[in-house]
Amino acid sequence: MARVRTAEIVAVGSELLTPFRLDTNSLVITERLNELGVALTGKSVVGDDRSRLATRLREALARADLVVATGGLGPTADDVTRDAAAEVVGRELVEDPAVLSTIRERFARRGVRMPEINRRQAQVIAGAALLPNPYGTAPGQLLEIEGRLLVLLPGPTREMQAIFDESVRPRLERSGAPGVERRVVKVTGRSESQVEEIAHPIYARWLDAEPVIETTILASPGVIELHLSTLAEDAALGREALERAARELEAALAPAAFSIDGRPLERVVGKLLHDRGWTIAVAESCTAGLLLARLTEVPGSSAWVLGGVVAYADDVKTRHLGVPASLIASEGAVSAAVAEAMADGVRERFGADVGVGVTGIAGPGGGSDAKPVGTVWIAVSAANRARQRYLFPGDRQAVRQHAVAAALDLVRRQSGVWVPT
Amino acid sequence: MARVRTAEIVAVGSELLTPFRLDTNSLVITERLNELGVALTGKSVVGDDRSRLATRLREALARADLVVATGGLGPTADDVTRDAAAEVVGRELVEDPAVLSTIRERFARRGVRMPEINRRQAQVIAGAALLPNPYGTAPGQLLEIEGRLLVLLPGPTREMQAIFDESVRPRLERSGAPGVERRVVKVTGRSESQVEEIAHPIYARWLDAEPVIETTILASPGVIELHLSTLAEDAALGREALERAARELEAALAPAAFSIDGRPLERVVGKLLHDRGWTIAVAESCTAGLLLARLTEVPGSSAWVLGGVVAYADDVKTRHLGVPASLIASEGAVSAAVAEAMADGVRERFGADVGVGVTGIAGPGGGSDAKPVGTVWIAVSAANRARQRYLFPGDRQAVRQHAVAAALDLVRRQSGVWVPT
Repeated sequence: MARVRTAEIVAVGSELLTPFRLDTNSLVITERLNELGVALTGKSVVGDDRSRLATRLREALARADLVVATGGLGPTADDVTRDAAAEVVGRELVEDPAVLSTIRERFARRGVRMPEINRRQAQVIAGAALLPNPYGTAPGQLLEIEGRLLVLLPGPTREMQAIFDESVRPRLERSGAPGVERRVVKVTGRSESQVEEIAHPIYARWLDAEPVIETTILASPGVIELHLSTLAEDAALGREALERAARELEAALAPAAFSIDGRPLERVVGKLLHDRGWTIAVAESCTAGLLLARLTEVPGSSAWVLGGVVAYADDVKTRHLGVPASLIASEGAVSAAVAEAMADGVRERFGADVGVGVTGIAGPGGGSDAKPVGTVWIAVSAANRARQRYLFPGDRQAVRQHAVAAALDLVRRQSGVWVPT
Repeated sequence: MARVRTAEIVAVGSELLTPFRLDTNSLVITERLNELGVALTGKSVVGDDRSRLATRLREALARADLVVATGGLGPTADDVTRDAAAEVVGRELVEDPAVLSTIRERFARRGVRMPEINRRQAQVIAGAALLPNPYGTAPGQLLEIEGRLLVLLPGPTREMQAIFDESVRPRLERSGAPGVERRVVKVTGRSESQVEEIAHPIYARWLDAEPVIETTILASPGVIELHLSTLAEDAALGREALERAARELEAALAPAAFSIDGRPLERVVGKLLHDRGWTIAVAESCTAGLLLARLTEVPGSSAWVLGGVVAYADDVKTRHLGVPASLIASEGAVSAAVAEAMADGVRERFGADVGVGVTGIAGPGGGSDAKPVGTVWIAVSAANRARQRYLFPGDRQAVRQHAVAAALDLVRRQSGVWVPT
């Protein structure tokens, strides 16, 4: 078998073209292909339409060493993958007696007569290798055409996955391709273009290096991720190259880079607290519980998270955090002084080592010229204190997510200058 | 403009070819296209590779009346959609001074100098209509080539959606196709198969009715959605049919159906509180702020949400909610009595009309035979009181999401029996 380096996935099913369903099978296949050193170069979704599917399969086979089609192997008239694939490779469909009797037995074991339409599932493309299906009636099929591979798998994930693992993987392993290694560098407090400006001159070099390292930047509110990957003939060498690359980016992006091992920000902060044996308590206004929810996403976080107060109403800030009403009146609820008083208040009242206060305007209402929507004050109260004003872009949800990331990051950075109380 | 009947979507981004990301933008676009009577005939995902993208765009334009490309309009070198599209249509890219100054101003408003690489986002394909981006720097672009439409939209969902709604939709509406009408019925507190058992005999009939109504069931932790749709030559008749259908399901699924107009549970609860002029305060343990975060997702929620206490540590339950330490010792932190004491405590201490207490075991650790992972007690304290034990399936995140939905639902149901205090 020719060495397989590139693959495309074609997901078949009209339901996958509605607003309600996504092709998630391709994630399962991609993970496996990557492990086998096969790069996914594209994927497609097409409805239960024989001619459209045939076109897609033809296009994919023209581009990739391996094409995996999922779905459309059922017994009904709108299951057209067998027919479309036979047309594309110019071969006949033949009823396989062994497959047919397997299907009949499967029904018999459940005490059910095989419906006549299930005969369709015994149709095999002439010359195809049959891939047994341990969990369903439709076997997979594998064809080699002019040095390229076409694999047909059923749509149900469990069946698709089992057939891939039992019958497709061993064939690809024999083709002996190297695997893809990955690393993720995570950055906060910088925009995508700020990160790009620093990172691009670095990762651009890696495209000419040996091994080649490819970099993709992903942005979400509060976190920018740089995904590094390399196709490694030698996995250990690939991992070493990625380790060096990740450390180079980390140094260039310091102190904004907070993780080079995939850990999310709340785990990084959790570990800092855990290592010191310190506890944290949080007072939130605009983020209204999201910061505490993030901190407690980490299993075992009850060791360092005590809890906190969501002080949505001003009166709650005064009564439950001890923020003087006069301070709110003079400075405004969204101010440095109030953020600090919230952080101090929750720290003292909860008996925590670290207190955090977050107050801001998430929108859509409540903004002014002096304090537009997106204005957030965050304060950290510990042995040392820090406070910071932010102006976050985006809608209510984005502002809240940005604020959570910024608060976690302020704790992380501040921890570097913590001294024992 | 020619009438647009078919469309393909091409999602651009190497991250969408990893095992970690799916193209979810296409769902948003598909929904809108369907409303406009446009059928999606296929979709593709391609990496940040100019030549592969150009091939995909060419193929799609050969098949569909409209091709929507999302992503790859950012400022970085791996954002290649502008270049690929210009190549496909055989036109030049030109820097647009007006777009450039808009981008500069956008940065200036946030007090930041525009990084030089953002100039790339001002490049426009000669002859393209510019589609303003209210939320980001990259405008969309629209081209008409030989009677077909090519639309380029940025990848961030919010930007993509706003540009589609403000600039693409009006152009397609003028092409005057019959639209798909939709309704969503939302249910909580029932499993997908329980909902299916009740709903299937009802919606199966609609497939033979006039107009035909199609139903899709979608499940997520805590909420089951039934999506009804009909292709209506006459929009008003279609909406009437869906209204009747939605009401039939609502009645059959009462009292678990909480919304037939798309409103999420937190809005339904918010409206109940708002209509009564009542306020709410929340005491959370295992959900650790998620319930408050959900309640405050509704803009304007400061009118009815006072705030609350996240009592992750037992000591916090005692000191800040008045839950007797002896009660925690005798009943356990996850118990009916503690949930009620939390609800009562937060209600009294915050001076709210309604108090909610949530305590449970989200896992992965902390479970026992008597109280396995997934056990959650929720109490609502108002003029009347309610408490309920739950055993939720799934991992830490799923248990927390289930608990938030259940708490909101308990407030909703309990509100029916509230009497003035």
